[in-house]
Amino acid sequence: LQSTGKLPLQVKFLIEGEEEVGSEQINKYLPTAREKLKCDVVVISDTSQFAPGQPAITYGLRGIAYYELRLTGPKQDLHSGTFGGAVTNPANMLAKMIAALTDGQGRIQVPGFYNDVTPLSDRERREFAGLPFSEANFQQQIGVTGLSGEAGYSTLERRWARPTCDVNGLWSGYQGEGAKTVLPAKAGAKLSFRLVPKQDPHKITQSLRTFLESMCPPGITLELIDFHGAPAAITPLESPYIEAAAKAIEKGFGKRPVLIREGGSIPIVTSFQQELGADTLLLGWGLDDDNTHSPNEKFSLADFHRGIKASAYLWDELSKLTTK
Amino acid sequence: LQSTGKLPLQVKFLIEGEEEVGSEQINKYLPTAREKLKCDVVVISDTSQFAPGQPAITYGLRGIAYYELRLTGPKQDLHSGTFGGAVTNPANMLAKMIAALTDGQGRIQVPGFYNDVTPLSDRERREFAGLPFSEANFQQQIGVTGLSGEAGYSTLERRWARPTCDVNGLWSGYQGEGAKTVLPAKAGAKLSFRLVPKQDPHKITQSLRTFLESMCPPGITLELIDFHGAPAAITPLESPYIEAAAKAIEKGFGKRPVLIREGGSIPIVTSFQQELGADTLLLGWGLDDDNTHSPNEKFSLADFHRGIKASAYLWDELSKLTTK
Repeated sequence: LQSTGKLPLQVKFLIEGEEEVGSEQINKYLPTAREKLKCDVVVISDTSQFAPGQPAITYGLRGIAYYELRLTGPKQDLHSGTFGGAVTNPANMLAKMIAALTDGQGRIQVPGFYNDVTPLSDRERREFAGLPFSEANFQQQIGVTGLSGEAGYSTLERRWARPTCDVNGLWSGYQGEGAKTVLPAKAGAKLSFRLVPKQDPHKITQSLRTFLESMCPPGITLELIDFHGAPAAITPLESPYIEAAAKAIEKGFGKRPVLIREGGSIPIVTSFQQELGADTLLLGWGLDDDNTHSPNEKFSLADFHRGIKASAYLWDELSKLTTK
Repeated sequence: LQSTGKLPLQVKFLIEGEEEVGSEQINKYLPTAREKLKCDVVVISDTSQFAPGQPAITYGLRGIAYYELRLTGPKQDLHSGTFGGAVTNPANMLAKMIAALTDGQGRIQVPGFYNDVTPLSDRERREFAGLPFSEANFQQQIGVTGLSGEAGYSTLERRWARPTCDVNGLWSGYQGEGAKTVLPAKAGAKLSFRLVPKQDPHKITQSLRTFLESMCPPGITLELIDFHGAPAAITPLESPYIEAAAKAIEKGFGKRPVLIREGGSIPIVTSFQQELGADTLLLGWGLDDDNTHSPNEKFSLADFHRGIKASAYLWDELSKLTTK
């Protein structure tokens, strides 16, 4: 409006604050507001550029299945000398269960886990391989001297298009300074799987529960809490909105965007497809070193301003397409 | 003194407050005070009766080797969607390492761990088997519906005379309510082994370090902190002090004590043997359900008073023996 005096199309804003905890309320709201929210395409800014100076359109996201696993043994903490060796230790057992979820390289061992996985196409593997990605820079950025992951896949493939099993949190017994000789009564973990297209979080929950329960020994009670799940999402590469977005980004950033996938999950993308019948354009201006979900999270002001320009051009480009 | 007006022998008191954290100061002090502390026998009250109404003399203790294991991956917590699958997760790896320390039943897998283990004698196994121990009561006491442990050994053997590997604490990443999709930068565990006679804590530390380091993958830094270690201790069953103590306990409690071992560790017993050349009488009046090292720890007042009586008789009985 500031640049041209009038909007070339109608824009509807939908703002939610629960994206990180399963989008419970918005998923209740959407089915009640189909007419009000009717649209040609959804635009979300929650992704990153491929690299500094190299903007991207993200056409695929991983899904997620997030759990809390709680093991309870004796009714209270016990003396590890008096009782150790005869009483099943929930912390030892938690380690056994988590260890059994993956092989040494991170390939998931839950029976049936890979049944529905859509493999990467040859075209996608070629395009990923052609991106200017430096493993050495990546390692330096996150501060590690080596990487590991599922055998047979590149680092970008592992991050964007292969499922994962990551422990997000662990707790049991004594966590303070020095030693305490306690056999803990409880042990717990936050645990999540990133999913790829066609994997169903509900089926994953069932397989996981069966697998964990089959390992649960005498004297331990197992509780698996299913926090939230969302399938992966893909926007068809042939969508005319993707080409419109590419033009707008090129004007805003001075560089044509690359087409990438992203390892994170934005569950609402699937809901928009289901409830509004609309694909989503994921146009985000973050960078890999923004420390998202970590201390000292940041966002580049230069990209903030380039992103504003690209967004203004986007309404122009989208208005040139025939609306439904 | 209150009962008879004079003590029949000389009693020296040595009080320490660091027993739970490795007895560092007293182990420095003992070699400097050999003459001052010279004695025929040491008496320590830090053990339990076999059962309510069944006092015991504890002639064997397990040793201990206590560690903190710290794994560090990326320089800070990462987004588990953006990075998961390509970055070695320290919490997953910690679970792998802990799981590898034992088989499903708690038999320790660290190479060489059992090399020096003194097996239980046939006499000891018979005597343990003859004690009035109810597995059902034991399970009810600690609130579990089943037990597990090293194959081929009874519950008492597992508690008193076989080595163990117990996780005493675990921590990593997000431990709060709900979900946080973080790939943790660090994961840690408190970890201890109970040792049996002839096992050397220093050799165990070396074997453990080698074993853990052999499992450490690219991108993970391993730190193993050795908190404290102490070998197991045995007082010879033929010691005349044991018979003197049995008589005193019978007078104090109205019941002859049984001879048992105990799964806990009292490292100073070994130091007294080494520095003063004196065996230790372990005469304690606790009970298995005292919740030692746990919330709501207790001690029976009736046993407190019976213990006072037994202790008074003990000086009498000990004074009848020829002093060195």
